[in-house]
Amino acid sequence: MTETTGYSGGGPVLIKNPHLDSMEEDILYHLDLGTRTHNLPAMFGDIKFVCVGGSPNRMKAFAQFMHKELGLEGSGEDLADICAGTDRYAMYRTGPVLSISHGMGIPSISIMLHELIKLLHHAKCRDVTIIRIGTSGGLGIKAGSVVITDTAVDASFQPRFEQVVLGDVVVRSTDLDRELAEELLACSKEVPDFPTLIGHTMCTYDFYEGQGRLDGALCSFSSEKKLEYLKRAHKAGVRNIEMESTAFAAMCRLCGLRAAVVCVALLDRLEGDQIRAPREVLREYQQRPQRLIAAFIRRRLGLRPPPATEGTTDRHGL
Amino acid sequence: MTETTGYSGGGPVLIKNPHLDSMEEDILYHLDLGTRTHNLPAMFGDIKFVCVGGSPNRMKAFAQFMHKELGLEGSGEDLADICAGTDRYAMYRTGPVLSISHGMGIPSISIMLHELIKLLHHAKCRDVTIIRIGTSGGLGIKAGSVVITDTAVDASFQPRFEQVVLGDVVVRSTDLDRELAEELLACSKEVPDFPTLIGHTMCTYDFYEGQGRLDGALCSFSSEKKLEYLKRAHKAGVRNIEMESTAFAAMCRLCGLRAAVVCVALLDRLEGDQIRAPREVLREYQQRPQRLIAAFIRRRLGLRPPPATEGTTDRHGL
Repeated sequence: MTETTGYSGGGPVLIKNPHLDSMEEDILYHLDLGTRTHNLPAMFGDIKFVCVGGSPNRMKAFAQFMHKELGLEGSGEDLADICAGTDRYAMYRTGPVLSISHGMGIPSISIMLHELIKLLHHAKCRDVTIIRIGTSGGLGIKAGSVVITDTAVDASFQPRFEQVVLGDVVVRSTDLDRELAEELLACSKEVPDFPTLIGHTMCTYDFYEGQGRLDGALCSFSSEKKLEYLKRAHKAGVRNIEMESTAFAAMCRLCGLRAAVVCVALLDRLEGDQIRAPREVLREYQQRPQRLIAAFIRRRLGLRPPPATEGTTDRHGL
Repeated sequence: MTETTGYSGGGPVLIKNPHLDSMEEDILYHLDLGTRTHNLPAMFGDIKFVCVGGSPNRMKAFAQFMHKELGLEGSGEDLADICAGTDRYAMYRTGPVLSISHGMGIPSISIMLHELIKLLHHAKCRDVTIIRIGTSGGLGIKAGSVVITDTAVDASFQPRFEQVVLGDVVVRSTDLDRELAEELLACSKEVPDFPTLIGHTMCTYDFYEGQGRLDGALCSFSSEKKLEYLKRAHKAGVRNIEMESTAFAAMCRLCGLRAAVVCVALLDRLEGDQIRAPREVLREYQQRPQRLIAAFIRRRLGLRPPPATEGTTDRHGL
């Protein structure tokens, strides 16, 4: 069974669940929010951009950074975690931007997306763009490069996501919004101090054996077999490897959300497995997708960059 | 290809990776620890019990609780997060007990386990018992029941874990240590105020469609089909459903760790999907596996329960 749906673009969030309307209350358990306990339209109705990423600290830093980039009052240092009642995810908002963590791996992002998409639906949000800003391993690209995903592929380099439903496998398309990817690439010219490219992103179920690493607790293959696999991936168009993009692409597509994946490469996997760059360097790398997305959101809102972003202090203080 | 290995029991941690010995340094990236930056044998060499669970707050509370249960000096309130340099996982130690969070889902626990198992190996730990204490959905059992897993099964009720290695699927056994499960059941008689049972645990890749929930953002099946699936699972011996046990069982087994999974059921999935119990009730439920494991560790160490644990204040203050 294959499910495919075109993007509705610019419309409401589509909930593909006929049971939801008959529920008197919807408890978004892992977000510690609910339709009876919270006024979701008032809290979230004007959200236009949702940015998601693995690390709670990084998504907090992104919200604070966006606060400044949007030229909003105050330092943004005191933004509160909307999901403070749970430690499963962290959520911050500033202006029309929502910033949420999703943990690591497909199951973790999947729980968050189910509840986030229901949240956007309950809040009657429209014209929402959702972007995953993450970290990844690069493939034949320089460490610090930013990859905008055109298509998320699985460990066999196929553009599909296999979802198990009641014990059966359902295959879903993982195409992302091509126009949005091109728009992001155009924005990358505003932040010219790092390379940005468009390519396929491979999504795996683990970080070690699944990504061909030689440095896990288990490894049954040789360095040659590893390189052969990674080179085949590169030949298939894969430019980086992470752990959430296929599920993210598939779910957003089915629910009518314009979606993009923008990840920085922390290393080139053709050169090694361990992430060895100094912490300061890694921190600056992780800011790169954030700076690109800030430029994109400013452009969409017709804002010019605030003077502060021209200095290096603010950028590096994230 | 099927890999099976018996438990070595009572011995060293087995690293099944010939490449590891030739590495000059091993950076445990997601734990923010490393062989060159930390004296792992000094920090962890005497660890005998490792407890893992999804939520960082819960694993901190468990470490503080164990500190009191072991009768150690001080309140345990000031236990420091050993992985404070990263927000991917949180880790605490008290006496011979290590308490670590693993996030939600197989990929997230898999990253943590690769790095934890290497940590135990580098630290030259011996005779380590590892227990996952978590939350789950029950199947035909009362909310608040604690399930000790005999076998972790996948969404087709099979005792297997499929690991993708360089694009190919490797099937691994998910048997857990039967003696350890029986020992834990015997310990449950020391904490008689909640029901404890042994059963199969089903492990899925998501919380909504994969577990037959009707309340996700996507749902393509009827209430009847859902119940039919859950009843088939129950008939196959499944008593609870969670998202980490197959990968946990498979990896621990391959690495010679005596392993158990002990999860409380937050609801009975035959009766509903949403977790509706009041927060206070859920909090007390989540303490139940912790209390059982505390009784087990005390018994293994030949300790009697400290007077404080007899009161309800300490139990409920977790």
